[in-house]
Amino acid sequence: MTQQELVALIKKKKSYLCVGLDTDVCKIPSHLKTSKDPVFEFNKQIIDATIEYAVAYKPNIAFYEALGSRGWESLYKTMDYLPKNVFTIADAKRGDIGNTSEMYAKTFFEHMNFDAITVAPYMGADSVLPFLKFPNKWVILLALTSNQGSCDFQQLILQNGRPLYQEVILKSQAWASENQMMYVVGATHIEHLKETRKIAPHHFLLVPGVGAQGGSLEEVSNVALNAANIGILVNVSRQILYTSPSQDFFIQAKKQAKALQETMASFLDS
Amino acid sequence: MTQQELVALIKKKKSYLCVGLDTDVCKIPSHLKTSKDPVFEFNKQIIDATIEYAVAYKPNIAFYEALGSRGWESLYKTMDYLPKNVFTIADAKRGDIGNTSEMYAKTFFEHMNFDAITVAPYMGADSVLPFLKFPNKWVILLALTSNQGSCDFQQLILQNGRPLYQEVILKSQAWASENQMMYVVGATHIEHLKETRKIAPHHFLLVPGVGAQGGSLEEVSNVALNAANIGILVNVSRQILYTSPSQDFFIQAKKQAKALQETMASFLDS
Repeated sequence: MTQQELVALIKKKKSYLCVGLDTDVCKIPSHLKTSKDPVFEFNKQIIDATIEYAVAYKPNIAFYEALGSRGWESLYKTMDYLPKNVFTIADAKRGDIGNTSEMYAKTFFEHMNFDAITVAPYMGADSVLPFLKFPNKWVILLALTSNQGSCDFQQLILQNGRPLYQEVILKSQAWASENQMMYVVGATHIEHLKETRKIAPHHFLLVPGVGAQGGSLEEVSNVALNAANIGILVNVSRQILYTSPSQDFFIQAKKQAKALQETMASFLDS
Repeated sequence: MTQQELVALIKKKKSYLCVGLDTDVCKIPSHLKTSKDPVFEFNKQIIDATIEYAVAYKPNIAFYEALGSRGWESLYKTMDYLPKNVFTIADAKRGDIGNTSEMYAKTFFEHMNFDAITVAPYMGADSVLPFLKFPNKWVILLALTSNQGSCDFQQLILQNGRPLYQEVILKSQAWASENQMMYVVGATHIEHLKETRKIAPHHFLLVPGVGAQGGSLEEVSNVALNAANIGILVNVSRQILYTSPSQDFFIQAKKQAKALQETMASFLDS
Protein backbone atom coordinates (compact mmCIF):
# COMPACT_ATOMS: atom_id res chain seq x y z
CA MET A 1 0.00 0.00 0.00
CA THR A 2 1.35 3.44 -0.88
CA GLN A 3 1.35 6.41 1.48
CA GLN A 4 -1.33 8.08 -0.61
CA GLU A 5 -3.58 5.05 -0.34
CA LEU A 6 -3.02 4.86 3.40
CA VAL A 7 -3.86 8.54 3.87
CA ALA A 8 -6.98 8.15 1.70
CA LEU A 9 -8.06 5.17 3.81
CA ILE A 10 -7.59 7.13 7.03
CA LYS A 11 -9.64 10.03 5.67
CA LYS A 12 -12.39 7.72 4.44
CA LYS A 13 -12.73 5.85 7.73
CA LYS A 14 -11.91 8.92 9.85
CA SER A 15 -9.64 6.68 11.84
CA TYR A 16 -5.94 6.07 12.42
CA LEU A 17 -6.60 3.06 14.60
CA CYS A 18 -4.40 -0.01 14.31
CA VAL A 19 -5.69 -3.10 16.08
CA GLY A 20 -2.89 -5.16 17.57
CA LEU A 21 -3.69 -8.85 17.14
CA ASP A 22 -1.66 -10.04 20.14
CA THR A 23 -3.85 -13.09 20.34
CA ASP A 24 -2.93 -15.07 23.44
CA VAL A 25 -4.53 -18.48 23.44
CA CYS A 26 -4.69 -18.37 27.27
CA LYS A 27 -6.67 -15.14 27.28
CA ILE A 28 -9.34 -15.75 24.66
CA PRO A 29 -12.91 -16.48 25.85
CA SER A 30 -13.32 -20.08 26.91
CA HIS A 31 -16.22 -20.83 24.56
CA LEU A 32 -13.83 -20.44 21.63
CA LYS A 33 -11.25 -22.85 22.96
CA THR A 34 -13.06 -25.89 21.68
CA SER A 35 -13.23 -24.61 18.10
CA LYS A 36 -10.91 -26.11 15.50
CA ASP A 37 -8.63 -23.06 15.39
CA PRO A 38 -9.36 -20.89 18.44
CA VAL A 39 -6.78 -18.23 17.54
CA PHE A 40 -8.16 -17.72 14.05
CA GLU A 41 -11.77 -17.85 15.29
CA PHE A 42 -10.97 -15.12 17.83
CA ASN A 43 -9.17 -12.99 15.23
CA LYS A 44 -12.03 -13.38 12.78
CA GLN A 45 -14.55 -12.10 15.29
CA ILE A 46 -12.27 -9.25 16.38
CA ILE A 47 -11.75 -8.24 12.74
CA ASP A 48 -15.51 -8.37 12.04
CA ALA A 49 -16.17 -6.26 15.14
CA THR A 50 -13.54 -3.60 14.42
CA ILE A 51 -13.19 -3.39 10.64
CA GLU A 52 -15.53 -0.41 10.43
CA TYR A 53 -13.29 1.57 12.79
CA ALA A 54 -9.74 0.44 12.05
CA VAL A 55 -7.39 1.11 9.14
CA ALA A 56 -4.61 -1.25 10.16
CA TYR A 57 -4.07 -4.63 11.82
CA LYS A 58 -0.85 -5.68 13.50
CA PRO A 59 -0.44 -9.36 14.41
CA ASN A 60 2.28 -9.79 16.99
CA ILE A 61 4.26 -12.61 15.45
CA ALA A 62 5.53 -13.99 18.78
CA PHE A 63 2.05 -15.07 19.78
CA TYR A 64 1.67 -17.20 16.66
CA GLU A 65 5.22 -18.53 16.60
CA ALA A 66 4.75 -19.74 20.18
CA LEU A 67 2.16 -22.24 18.93
CA GLY A 68 4.47 -23.83 16.37
CA SER A 69 3.24 -24.69 12.87
CA ARG A 70 -0.37 -24.51 14.12
CA GLY A 71 0.21 -20.86 15.03
CA TRP A 72 1.64 -20.05 11.61
CA GLU A 73 -1.47 -21.56 10.04
CA SER A 74 -3.69 -19.34 12.19
CA LEU A 75 -1.63 -16.36 11.06
CA TYR A 76 -1.86 -17.27 7.37
CA LYS A 77 -5.63 -17.70 7.72
CA THR A 78 -5.92 -14.36 9.51
CA MET A 79 -4.02 -12.64 6.69
CA ASP A 80 -6.30 -14.31 4.14
CA TYR A 81 -9.36 -13.20 6.05
CA LEU A 82 -8.34 -9.53 6.32
CA PRO A 83 -9.84 -7.40 3.53
CA LYS A 84 -7.36 -6.10 0.96
CA ASN A 85 -8.02 -2.46 1.80
CA VAL A 86 -6.47 -2.43 5.26
CA PHE A 87 -2.84 -1.82 6.12
CA THR A 88 -1.19 -4.91 7.61
CA ILE A 89 1.84 -4.86 9.88
CA ALA A 90 3.91 -7.88 10.89
CA ASP A 91 5.08 -6.96 14.37
CA ALA A 92 8.16 -9.11 14.20
CA LYS A 93 10.97 -6.76 15.28
CA ARG A 94 13.38 -8.59 13.00
CA GLY A 95 16.81 -7.42 11.84
CA ASP A 96 19.85 -9.48 10.95
CA ILE A 97 22.78 -9.56 8.53
CA GLY A 98 21.91 -8.97 4.87
CA ASN A 99 21.12 -12.46 3.58
CA THR A 100 19.06 -13.22 6.69
CA SER A 101 17.07 -9.98 6.62
CA GLU A 102 16.33 -10.79 2.99
CA MET A 103 14.84 -14.12 4.06
CA TYR A 104 12.67 -12.38 6.65
CA ALA A 105 11.55 -9.81 4.06
CA LYS A 106 10.49 -12.57 1.67
CA THR A 107 8.58 -14.35 4.42
CA PHE A 108 6.52 -11.39 5.49
CA PHE A 109 6.21 -9.38 2.26
CA GLU A 110 6.00 -12.12 -0.38
CA HIS A 111 4.68 -15.26 1.31
CA MET A 112 2.36 -13.54 3.77
CA ASN A 113 1.73 -10.34 1.85
CA PHE A 114 2.09 -7.93 4.77
CA ASP A 115 2.34 -4.23 3.91
CA ALA A 116 4.86 -3.52 6.63
CA ILE A 117 7.19 -5.11 9.15
CA THR A 118 8.66 -3.76 12.36
CA VAL A 119 12.48 -3.88 12.29
CA ALA A 120 15.04 -3.44 15.08
CA PRO A 121 17.77 -0.94 14.17
CA TYR A 122 20.64 -2.20 16.34
CA MET A 123 22.49 -3.98 13.52
CA GLY A 124 22.51 -0.92 11.25
CA ALA A 125 21.92 -0.10 7.59
CA ASP A 126 22.72 -3.44 5.97
CA SER A 127 20.27 -5.20 8.28
CA VAL A 128 17.45 -2.84 7.25
CA LEU A 129 18.09 -2.22 3.55
CA PRO A 130 17.00 -5.70 2.35
CA PHE A 131 13.48 -4.90 3.59
CA LEU A 132 13.42 -1.75 1.47
CA LYS A 133 13.79 -3.49 -1.88
CA PHE A 134 10.10 -4.35 -2.08
CA PRO A 135 7.99 -1.70 -3.81
CA ASN A 136 5.11 -0.28 -1.76
CA LYS A 137 6.21 -2.26 1.28
CA TRP A 138 7.20 -0.51 4.50
CA VAL A 139 9.81 -0.75 7.22
CA ILE A 140 8.63 0.42 10.62
CA LEU A 141 11.85 0.99 12.50
CA LEU A 142 11.93 0.79 16.29
CA ALA A 143 12.97 4.19 17.55
CA LEU A 144 11.58 4.74 21.06
CA THR A 145 9.51 1.83 22.30
CA SER A 146 6.76 2.10 24.90
CA ASN A 147 8.29 -0.20 27.51
CA GLN A 148 10.30 0.72 30.59
CA GLY A 149 13.49 -0.76 29.13
CA SER A 150 13.46 1.97 26.48
CA CYS A 151 15.50 4.05 28.95
CA ASP A 152 18.31 1.47 29.08
CA PHE A 153 19.79 2.22 25.65
CA GLN A 154 17.35 4.10 23.39
CA GLN A 155 17.43 7.23 25.53
CA LEU A 156 21.17 7.28 26.23
CA ILE A 157 22.84 10.48 25.09
CA LEU A 158 25.54 10.17 22.47
CA GLN A 159 28.69 12.22 22.29
CA ASN A 160 27.02 14.38 19.64
CA GLY A 161 24.38 15.35 22.20
CA ARG A 162 21.55 13.35 20.71
CA PRO A 163 19.67 10.50 22.34
CA LEU A 164 20.26 7.22 20.51
CA TYR A 165 16.66 6.92 19.28
CA GLN A 166 16.96 10.31 17.54
CA GLU A 167 20.21 9.21 15.92
CA VAL A 168 18.31 6.15 14.65
CA ILE A 169 15.61 8.38 13.16
CA LEU A 170 18.04 10.84 11.59
CA LYS A 171 20.49 8.30 10.17
CA SER A 172 17.81 6.04 8.77
CA GLN A 173 16.21 8.87 6.81
CA ALA A 174 19.07 8.41 4.35
CA TRP A 175 18.01 4.80 3.78
CA ALA A 176 14.47 5.43 2.52
CA SER A 177 11.93 8.20 2.09
CA GLU A 178 8.77 8.70 4.13
CA ASN A 179 7.02 6.60 1.49
CA GLN A 180 8.67 3.44 2.80
CA MET A 181 9.78 4.15 6.34
CA MET A 182 7.81 4.73 9.54
CA TYR A 183 9.03 4.89 13.13
CA VAL A 184 7.78 3.30 16.33
CA VAL A 185 7.51 5.90 19.08
CA GLY A 186 5.65 4.93 22.25
CA ALA A 187 2.66 6.86 23.57
CA THR A 188 4.27 6.65 26.99
CA HIS A 189 6.87 9.27 25.94
CA ILE A 190 4.87 12.36 25.01
CA GLU A 191 7.79 14.80 25.18
CA HIS A 192 9.91 12.56 22.97
CA LEU A 193 7.02 12.13 20.57
CA LYS A 194 6.95 15.90 20.19
CA GLU A 195 10.71 15.96 19.55
CA THR A 196 10.33 13.16 17.02
CA ARG A 197 7.76 15.16 15.08
CA LYS A 198 10.34 17.94 14.76
CA ILE A 199 13.06 15.72 13.28
CA ALA A 200 10.71 13.57 11.19
CA PRO A 201 7.96 16.01 10.24
CA HIS A 202 6.52 13.98 7.37
CA HIS A 203 7.04 10.39 8.45
CA PHE A 204 4.26 8.18 9.67
CA LEU A 205 4.70 7.17 13.30
CA LEU A 206 3.35 3.93 14.66
CA VAL A 207 2.40 4.69 18.25
CA PRO A 208 1.92 1.79 20.66
CA GLY A 209 1.27 2.16 24.36
CA VAL A 210 -2.25 3.64 24.39
CA GLY A 211 -4.60 1.84 26.77
CA ALA A 212 -3.19 -0.95 28.94
CA GLN A 213 0.27 0.64 28.93
CA GLY A 214 -1.03 4.03 30.07
CA GLY A 215 -0.60 6.29 27.05
CA SER A 216 -3.34 8.77 26.14
CA LEU A 217 -4.89 8.94 22.66
CA GLU A 218 -5.67 12.64 23.12
CA GLU A 219 -2.12 13.56 24.08
CA VAL A 220 -0.67 11.52 21.24
CA SER A 221 -3.02 13.10 18.72
CA ASN A 222 -2.27 16.59 19.99
CA VAL A 223 1.47 16.34 19.57
CA ALA A 224 1.89 13.98 16.62
CA LEU A 225 -0.92 14.58 14.13
CA ASN A 226 0.25 16.10 10.92
CA ALA A 227 -1.74 18.65 8.92
CA ALA A 228 -0.37 17.41 5.61
CA ASN A 229 -0.64 13.63 5.77
CA ILE A 230 -2.02 12.80 9.25
CA GLY A 231 1.14 10.80 9.88
CA ILE A 232 0.18 8.52 12.76
CA LEU A 233 -1.21 5.08 13.35
CA VAL A 234 -2.17 4.47 16.96
CA ASN A 235 -2.02 0.85 17.99
CA VAL A 236 -4.35 -0.58 20.62
CA SER A 237 -4.24 -4.25 21.54
CA ARG A 238 -5.32 -5.40 24.98
CA GLN A 239 -7.95 -2.66 25.48
CA ILE A 240 -9.80 -4.01 22.43
CA LEU A 241 -9.04 -7.72 22.61
CA TYR A 242 -9.53 -8.55 26.24
CA THR A 243 -12.21 -6.25 27.66
CA SER A 244 -14.60 -9.13 28.21
CA PRO A 245 -13.82 -12.80 28.86
CA SER A 246 -17.30 -14.00 27.85
CA GLN A 247 -19.35 -14.59 24.72
CA ASP A 248 -19.98 -10.87 24.25
CA PHE A 249 -16.28 -10.09 23.81
CA PHE A 250 -16.79 -8.95 20.24
CA ILE A 251 -19.49 -6.49 21.31
CA GLN A 252 -17.11 -5.00 23.86
CA ALA A 253 -14.30 -4.95 21.29
CA LYS A 254 -16.58 -3.09 18.89
CA LYS A 255 -17.51 -0.59 21.60
CA GLN A 256 -13.87 0.11 22.40
CA ALA A 257 -12.87 0.45 18.74
CA LYS A 258 -15.84 2.73 18.02
CA ALA A 259 -15.01 5.02 20.95
CA LEU A 260 -11.39 5.26 19.85
CA GLN A 261 -12.44 5.97 16.26
CA GLU A 262 -14.84 8.70 17.38
CA THR A 263 -12.08 10.45 19.29
CA MET A 264 -9.84 10.15 16.23
CA ALA A 265 -12.60 11.53 13.97
CA SER A 266 -12.91 14.57 16.21
CA PHE A 267 -9.18 15.23 15.88
CA LEU A 268 -9.29 14.72 12.11
CA ASP A 269 -12.24 17.09 11.77
CA SER A 270 -10.70 19.85 13.85
CA MET B 1 23.15 -27.02 29.57
CA THR B 2 25.19 -25.47 32.40
CA GLN B 3 28.44 -23.60 31.88
CA GLN B 4 30.33 -26.45 33.53
CA GLU B 5 28.82 -28.96 31.14
CA LEU B 6 29.63 -26.76 28.15
CA VAL B 7 33.25 -26.35 29.25
CA ALA B 8 33.55 -30.11 29.83
CA LEU B 9 32.17 -30.75 26.34
CA ILE B 10 34.68 -28.35 24.79
CA LYS B 11 37.56 -30.01 26.64
CA LYS B 12 36.40 -33.47 25.64
CA LYS B 13 36.03 -32.65 21.95
CA LYS B 14 38.94 -30.19 21.94
CA SER B 15 36.73 -27.88 19.99
CA TYR B 16 34.82 -24.65 20.41
CA LEU B 17 33.26 -24.90 16.98
CA CYS B 18 29.64 -23.92 16.47
CA VAL B 19 28.15 -24.93 13.14
CA GLY B 20 25.69 -22.36 11.82
CA LEU B 21 22.77 -24.13 10.17
CA ASP B 22 21.87 -21.29 7.80
CA THR B 23 20.29 -23.80 5.49
CA ASP B 24 19.24 -22.03 2.31
CA VAL B 25 17.04 -24.22 0.17
CA CYS B 26 18.43 -22.49 -2.97
CA LYS B 27 22.01 -23.37 -2.09
CA ILE B 28 21.79 -27.02 -1.11
CA PRO B 29 23.08 -29.65 -3.57
CA SER B 30 20.55 -30.37 -6.29
CA HIS B 31 20.41 -34.14 -5.67
CA LEU B 32 18.78 -33.41 -2.29
CA LYS B 33 16.06 -31.19 -3.69
CA THR B 34 13.84 -34.09 -4.68
CA SER B 35 13.85 -35.61 -1.20
CA LYS B 36 10.77 -35.26 0.96
CA ASP B 37 12.31 -32.65 3.25
CA PRO B 38 15.45 -31.25 1.54
CA VAL B 39 16.31 -28.85 4.37
CA PHE B 40 16.19 -31.56 7.02
CA GLU B 41 18.03 -34.04 4.78
CA PHE B 42 20.82 -31.50 4.26
CA ASN B 43 21.01 -30.68 7.99
CA LYS B 44 21.10 -34.37 8.87
CA GLN B 45 24.08 -34.99 6.62
CA ILE B 46 25.86 -31.85 7.82
CA ILE B 47 25.32 -32.90 11.44
CA ASP B 48 26.59 -36.43 10.75
CA ALA B 49 29.65 -34.99 9.01
CA THR B 50 30.55 -32.47 11.71
CA ILE B 51 29.35 -33.92 15.01
CA GLU B 52 32.81 -35.27 15.85
CA TYR B 53 34.29 -31.77 15.58
CA ALA B 54 31.58 -29.41 16.80
CA VAL B 55 30.20 -28.64 20.26
CA ALA B 56 27.34 -26.39 19.19
CA TYR B 57 24.80 -25.95 16.41
CA LYS B 58 23.07 -22.70 15.58
CA PRO B 59 20.09 -22.83 13.22
CA ASN B 60 19.40 -19.40 11.78
CA ILE B 61 15.67 -19.15 12.33
CA ALA B 62 15.04 -16.82 9.35
CA PHE B 63 15.94 -19.56 6.90
CA TYR B 64 13.28 -21.89 8.33
CA GLU B 65 10.63 -19.25 8.90
CA ALA B 66 10.95 -18.22 5.23
CA LEU B 67 9.55 -21.63 4.26
CA GLY B 68 6.39 -21.29 6.32
CA SER B 69 5.07 -24.19 8.37
CA ARG B 70 7.16 -26.61 6.28
CA GLY B 71 10.28 -24.79 7.44
CA TRP B 72 9.27 -25.02 11.08
CA GLU B 73 8.82 -28.75 10.65
CA SER B 74 12.33 -29.06 9.22
CA LEU B 75 13.60 -27.13 12.23
CA TYR B 76 11.74 -29.30 14.74
CA LYS B 77 13.09 -32.43 13.03
CA THR B 78 16.62 -31.01 13.07
CA MET B 79 16.34 -30.33 16.80
CA ASP B 80 15.09 -33.87 17.36
CA TYR B 81 17.95 -35.27 15.32
CA LEU B 82 20.70 -33.40 17.20
CA PRO B 83 22.22 -35.46 19.99
CA LYS B 84 21.44 -34.28 23.52
CA ASN B 85 25.08 -33.54 24.37
CA VAL B 86 25.56 -30.58 22.05
CA PHE B 87 24.80 -26.96 22.81
CA THR B 88 21.97 -25.61 20.65
CA ILE B 89 21.44 -21.95 19.80
CA ALA B 90 18.34 -20.47 18.21
CA ASP B 91 19.74 -17.59 16.18
CA ALA B 92 16.54 -15.60 16.28
CA LYS B 93 17.68 -12.13 17.43
CA ARG B 94 14.37 -11.64 19.21
CA GLY B 95 13.53 -9.01 21.82
CA ASP B 96 10.19 -7.37 22.54
CA ILE B 97 8.09 -6.07 25.42
CA GLY B 98 7.79 -8.39 28.41
CA ASN B 99 4.76 -10.52 27.57
CA THR B 100 5.99 -10.97 23.99
CA SER B 101 9.55 -11.89 24.94
CA GLU B 102 8.01 -14.44 27.28
CA MET B 103 6.17 -16.01 24.33
CA TYR B 104 9.42 -16.19 22.36
CA ALA B 105 11.22 -17.73 25.33
CA LYS B 106 8.57 -20.44 25.63
CA THR B 107 8.78 -21.18 21.92
CA PHE B 108 12.52 -21.68 21.80
CA PHE B 109 13.28 -23.00 25.29
CA GLU B 110 10.21 -25.10 26.08
CA HIS B 111 8.68 -26.18 22.77
CA MET B 112 11.92 -26.56 20.83
CA ASN B 113 14.28 -27.22 23.73
CA PHE B 114 17.10 -24.94 22.59
CA ASP B 115 19.85 -24.22 25.14
CA ALA B 116 20.23 -20.62 24.06
CA ILE B 117 18.71 -17.85 22.01
CA THR B 118 20.27 -14.74 20.50
CA VAL B 119 18.52 -11.59 21.73
CA ALA B 120 18.69 -7.98 20.48
CA PRO B 121 19.33 -5.50 23.32
CA TYR B 122 17.74 -2.35 21.85
CA MET B 123 14.52 -2.57 23.90
CA GLY B 124 16.37 -2.89 27.22
CA ALA B 125 16.14 -4.92 30.41
CA ASP B 126 12.46 -5.84 30.41
CA SER B 127 12.77 -7.26 26.89
CA VAL B 128 15.63 -9.54 27.95
CA LEU B 129 14.67 -10.60 31.48
CA PRO B 130 11.82 -12.95 30.44
CA PHE B 131 14.40 -15.14 28.68
CA LEU B 132 16.41 -15.44 31.89
CA LYS B 133 13.69 -17.13 33.92
CA PHE B 134 14.46 -20.55 32.49
CA PRO B 135 17.05 -22.53 34.48
CA ASN B 136 20.14 -23.63 32.55
CA LYS B 137 18.99 -21.72 29.47
CA TRP B 138 21.09 -18.92 28.00
CA VAL B 139 20.65 -15.48 26.51
CA ILE B 140 23.25 -14.57 23.90
CA LEU B 141 22.97 -10.82 23.68
CA LEU B 142 23.98 -9.00 20.51
CA ALA B 143 26.83 -6.68 21.44
CA LEU B 144 29.00 -6.05 18.38
CA THR B 145 27.83 -7.92 15.31
CA SER B 146 30.08 -8.93 12.43
CA ASN B 147 28.33 -6.95 9.68
CA GLN B 148 29.24 -3.56 8.27
CA GLY B 149 26.16 -1.93 9.78
CA SER B 150 27.62 -2.54 13.23
CA CYS B 151 29.29 0.86 12.87
CA ASP B 152 25.96 2.67 12.44
CA PHE B 153 24.85 2.45 16.07
CA GLN B 154 26.76 -0.23 18.02
CA GLN B 155 30.07 1.63 17.81
CA LEU B 156 28.73 5.13 18.46
CA ILE B 157 30.35 6.78 21.46
CA LEU B 158 28.08 7.72 24.33
CA GLN B 159 28.40 10.82 26.48
CA ASN B 160 30.08 8.66 29.14
CA GLY B 161 32.86 7.90 26.66
CA ARG B 162 31.89 4.29 26.00
CA PRO B 163 30.82 2.81 22.70
CA LEU B 164 27.20 1.63 22.81
CA TYR B 165 28.11 -2.07 22.51
CA GLN B 166 30.27 -1.83 25.65
CA GLU B 167 27.43 -0.13 27.50
CA VAL B 168 25.24 -3.07 26.47
CA ILE B 169 27.80 -5.53 27.87
CA LEU B 170 28.34 -3.62 31.11
CA LYS B 171 24.69 -2.84 31.85
CA SER B 172 23.46 -6.32 31.06
CA GLN B 173 25.90 -7.92 33.49
CA ALA B 174 23.49 -6.78 36.19
CA TRP B 175 20.72 -8.85 34.61
CA ALA B 176 22.36 -12.27 34.79
CA SER B 177 25.63 -13.96 35.64
CA GLU B 178 28.06 -15.51 33.18
CA ASN B 179 26.19 -18.76 33.78
CA GLN B 180 23.25 -17.53 31.75
CA MET B 181 24.53 -14.73 29.54
CA MET B 182 26.88 -14.73 26.57
CA TYR B 183 27.66 -11.94 24.10
CA VAL B 184 27.88 -11.87 20.33
CA VAL B 185 31.09 -10.14 19.23
CA GLY B 186 32.09 -10.45 15.58
CA ALA B 187 35.44 -11.88 14.46
CA THR B 188 35.67 -8.93 12.08
CA HIS B 189 36.42 -6.60 15.03
CA ILE B 190 39.59 -7.97 16.61
CA GLU B 191 40.47 -4.83 18.58
CA HIS B 192 36.96 -4.64 20.01
CA LEU B 193 37.04 -8.33 20.83
CA LYS B 194 40.14 -7.64 22.91
CA GLU B 195 38.37 -4.76 24.67
CA THR B 196 35.35 -6.97 25.29
CA ARG B 197 37.52 -9.58 27.00
CA LYS B 198 38.64 -6.87 29.43
CA ILE B 199 35.13 -5.81 30.44
CA ALA B 200 33.64 -9.32 30.37
CA PRO B 201 36.56 -11.50 31.42
CA HIS B 202 34.54 -14.59 32.33
CA HIS B 203 31.64 -14.51 29.90
CA PHE B 204 31.36 -16.81 26.97
CA LEU B 205 31.49 -14.96 23.66
CA LEU B 206 29.77 -16.26 20.56
CA VAL B 207 31.98 -15.16 17.68
CA PRO B 208 30.51 -15.11 14.17
CA GLY B 209 32.30 -13.80 11.10
CA VAL B 210 35.06 -16.40 10.67
CA GLY B 211 35.31 -17.70 7.09
CA ALA B 212 33.05 -16.16 4.44
CA GLN B 213 32.90 -12.85 6.32
CA GLY B 214 36.70 -12.58 6.58
CA GLY B 215 37.44 -13.09 10.28
CA SER B 216 40.41 -15.24 11.33
CA LEU B 217 40.11 -18.15 13.75
CA GLU B 218 43.72 -17.70 14.88
CA GLU B 219 43.29 -14.01 15.69
CA VAL B 220 40.03 -14.64 17.51
CA SER B 221 41.55 -17.46 19.56
CA ASN B 222 44.61 -15.37 20.43
CA VAL B 223 42.65 -12.46 21.86
CA ALA B 224 39.51 -14.09 23.28
CA LEU B 225 40.41 -17.50 24.68
CA ASN B 226 40.17 -17.68 28.42
CA ALA B 227 42.52 -19.68 30.62
CA ALA B 228 39.82 -20.40 33.19
CA ASN B 229 36.80 -21.48 31.17
CA ILE B 230 37.81 -21.20 27.48
CA GLY B 231 34.95 -18.71 27.03
CA ILE B 232 34.38 -18.72 23.28
CA LEU B 233 32.26 -20.44 20.70
CA VAL B 234 33.32 -19.68 17.15
CA ASN B 235 30.52 -19.95 14.63
CA VAL B 236 31.18 -21.02 11.06
CA SER B 237 28.32 -21.39 8.59
CA ARG B 238 28.93 -20.95 4.86
CA GLN B 239 32.53 -22.25 4.93
CA ILE B 240 31.18 -25.59 6.18
CA LEU B 241 27.78 -25.78 4.52
CA TYR B 242 28.47 -24.67 0.96
CA THR B 243 32.02 -25.69 0.04
CA SER B 244 30.76 -28.15 -2.56
CA PRO B 245 27.54 -28.08 -4.58
CA SER B 246 27.69 -31.79 -5.45
CA GLN B 247 27.06 -35.16 -3.81
CA ASP B 248 30.33 -35.01 -1.86
CA PHE B 249 29.26 -31.88 0.05
CA PHE B 250 29.28 -33.74 3.35
CA ILE B 251 32.86 -34.93 2.77
CA GLN B 252 33.94 -31.33 2.16
CA ALA B 253 31.96 -30.17 5.20
CA LYS B 254 33.72 -32.79 7.30
CA LYS B 255 37.13 -31.67 6.00
CA GLN B 256 36.41 -28.03 6.85
CA ALA B 257 35.08 -28.86 10.32
CA LYS B 258 38.05 -31.15 11.03
CA ALA B 259 40.57 -28.48 9.99
CA LEU B 260 38.88 -25.89 12.19
CA GLN B 261 38.76 -28.31 15.11
CA GLU B 262 42.45 -29.14 14.73
CA THR B 263 43.36 -25.48 14.90
CA MET B 264 41.17 -25.13 17.98
CA ALA B 265 42.78 -28.18 19.59
CA SER B 266 46.21 -26.65 19.11
CA PHE B 267 45.06 -23.49 20.90
CA LEU B 268 43.47 -25.50 23.70
CA ASP B 269 46.63 -27.57 24.16
CA SER B 270 48.95 -24.60 24.29
